[in-house]
Amino acid sequence: MPVISITTDFGEKDGFVGTMKGVIWRICPEAQIADITHEVPPQDILSGAIALWRAAPFFPAGSVHLAVVDPGVGTPRRPMAAQIGEQYVVGPDNGLFTYMIVEAEKAERALRYIHLTNPAYWLPEVSRTFHGRDIFAPVAAHLARGVPLEQLGTPFEDPVRLELPQAKRTPEGWMAHISVIDSFGNLTTDLPAAALEGRRDVVMRLHGRQVDGIVESYGYRQKGELMALVDSEGYIEIAVVNGSAARLLEAKIGDDVHVILPRANQ
Amino acid sequence: MPVISITTDFGEKDGFVGTMKGVIWRICPEAQIADITHEVPPQDILSGAIALWRAAPFFPAGSVHLAVVDPGVGTPRRPMAAQIGEQYVVGPDNGLFTYMIVEAEKAERALRYIHLTNPAYWLPEVSRTFHGRDIFAPVAAHLARGVPLEQLGTPFEDPVRLELPQAKRTPEGWMAHISVIDSFGNLTTDLPAAALEGRRDVVMRLHGRQVDGIVESYGYRQKGELMALVDSEGYIEIAVVNGSAARLLEAKIGDDVHVILPRANQ
Amino acid sequence: MPVISITTDFGEKDGFVGTMKGVIWRICPEAQIADITHEVPPQDILSGAIALWRAAPFFPAGSVHLAVVDPGVGTPRRPMAAQIGEQYVVGPDNGLFTYMIVEAEKAERALRYIHLTNPAYWLPEVSRTFHGRDIFAPVAAHLARGVPLEQLGTPFEDPVRLELPQAKRTPEGWMAHISVIDSFGNLTTDLPAAALEGRRDVVMRLHGRQVDGIVESYGYRQKGELMALVDSEGYIEIAVVNGSAARLLEAKIGDDVHVILPRANQ
Repeated sequence: MPVISITTDFGEKDGFVGTMKGVIWRICPEAQIADITHEVPPQDILSGAIALWRAAPFFPAGSVHLAVVDPGVGTPRRPMAAQIGEQYVVGPDNGLFTYMIVEAEKAERALRYIHLTNPAYWLPEVSRTFHGRDIFAPVAAHLARGVPLEQLGTPFEDPVRLELPQAKRTPEGWMAHISVIDSFGNLTTDLPAAALEGRRDVVMRLHGRQVDGIVESYGYRQKGELMALVDSEGYIEIAVVNGSAARLLEAKIGDDVHVILPRANQ
Repeated sequence: MPVISITTDFGEKDGFVGTMKGVIWRICPEAQIADITHEVPPQDILSGAIALWRAAPFFPAGSVHLAVVDPGVGTPRRPMAAQIGEQYVVGPDNGLFTYMIVEAEKAERALRYIHLTNPAYWLPEVSRTFHGRDIFAPVAAHLARGVPLEQLGTPFEDPVRLELPQAKRTPEGWMAHISVIDSFGNLTTDLPAAALEGRRDVVMRLHGRQVDGIVESYGYRQKGELMALVDSEGYIEIAVVNGSAARLLEAKIGDDVHVILPRANQ
Repeated sequence: MPVISITTDFGEKDGFVGTMKGVIWRICPEAQIADITHEVPPQDILSGAIALWRAAPFFPAGSVHLAVVDPGVGTPRRPMAAQIGEQYVVGPDNGLFTYMIVEAEKAERALRYIHLTNPAYWLPEVSRTFHGRDIFAPVAAHLARGVPLEQLGTPFEDPVRLELPQAKRTPEGWMAHISVIDSFGNLTTDLPAAALEGRRDVVMRLHGRQVDGIVESYGYRQKGELMALVDSEGYIEIAVVNGSAARLLEAKIGDDVHVILPRANQ
């Protein structure tokens, strides 16, 4: 059965997402639909891009990922669909798919971009403010029921890309940044554990606090303790056991994390 | 595949909605189920009616819309199901379906109301406080798998109707009201754009602020600017570009919006 | 069609739950998936156990209930699956299933516990922090598509059990406790109505307030009034008509409720 995921900044209060599901099932009645998140901070394309990129690889090959964080709705910004490796995406061309695209490029996976110009696959009436319902949901549904990507519009080569925050090499180790704060208050950084080449004896400094070493999991430290570990995506994460590191440190997305590789062991 | 939507004031914390889905799948295992919203303010029938009415028309013909905002649960208020045009609804007879009914009457669509009196289509035990689980979910599931409306109970003609707020003609133009505040803080009014007969040069006054003209979409004004546009349902909406008009103006549902049609152009 | 429910403390912000659904549909594409709740307070196993126990019996026989409230993730705590009566469960062996197990024992229903030791039914790579995605979701999906419980690992007999709060007999009646606070602010207690043997003339004292008698439903008292009734699961509940008893009384889970059976009627 075809699978569609939905990622938006719409919240769950107003029925926007339910409306999009109604539209999808009019076109593709057997689609399985999963919400990734609808709590992307309003108009925060980068956060939406991260949420989608973390979830998408776990979906079945051929899934369609419908993503709408769209401050430019109603202006001439390009509506798009794409094949990114074994997955499809549909949404505004504003950088939402940057992480997925960059990863596919590194792995040399298939990449095809289509500017959605064929209104035969949209709702008959298109509003100025809700393209999620009027363009992106119907296009996602048509893709899910097997319409070839090429029929949806015209190919293009230069999707908008976000400038992605990235951990940088320093004389002492790395300067990393907080990239995700999850609902437990765990702080994911943009430093892949792989960059440490197996070392676990690192020292991290953020918000005037120091964290020594990387441990296996939350359960290896005492309740309330500040610690570092490798998160489920392979990145360095700062956490408080059974608590919230975000609240303890008053941390925000983008904050610096100094990662020091002690010299004695080098 | 049959489609059921669910709209409630239950929130998502307590598992009430998941329980209703379990009940539905016992009876109609192939039903596709979409949440419209479960964040209707507690016991706010009018807000529930608006959310349902905005979403329902986008669902496939024959969908069943299960709606439970039910301050009278456990008293003799009538449980009901209805055909409203090409859609079905199930819930308490307390006004929840007023907008859908009024619109179907205007368009002269089919309307049939059934008082749910046949316990053969309910759970064997019916609690006093959770008819969503014990009566409405099983009835919706039976409808979705094809049980004819008439078998669920006895016909009636006079569903409870809410008094609906409505924009009114004034000497200068219209007195409208805020009818929906979405999660972006956009303020939908009860004034259909059609009432302005194509004019876009109107002046709107609310909360001591003035908005000049109606523009195409958010992207046509600067970030932070207060503006007016036509929303995705065809109503006049007040918004702040990339911000929250609700927060800026401290606006509430029901607040007045004076709409002035400048005389020079009349 | 196979049914899977999901109960977690993950929240809905981060895409964790959507990711688990993607994993499930890779393995069992036709699974119907319902969220019970993802707003279990972080690491609060008892609240998760109650939410699951209240919802699970309403699901179709053979449903798989995937539950992840897992402060010990990444430590040697046992991952488990079980048959509990006509339902299956999958999650960490930390007490999450205690209520379901105790009820099945009372009713002498089938109980089989399996320690998940067969990685053939997991994702190829298992992280240290997200067993919901890497172990429990794939195991639930394999169960749902018909893999026998025994193939998932090795049987065991002693699942971890929570100490459950329980109403106790007193000279005057019962000492009960608040066990659930729902999103309306209704206060469910741990006193089954059956323990009162049909008496409705009881007096309840909590937070310095007194409630006289048990009535049929919310609609039988005036708006704003504090009242008691039998909840949808058969337990005594304290509520405020069209309001929040939790807010009025500043009540918390675990608070005492003195239930007095007046002597004259005994």
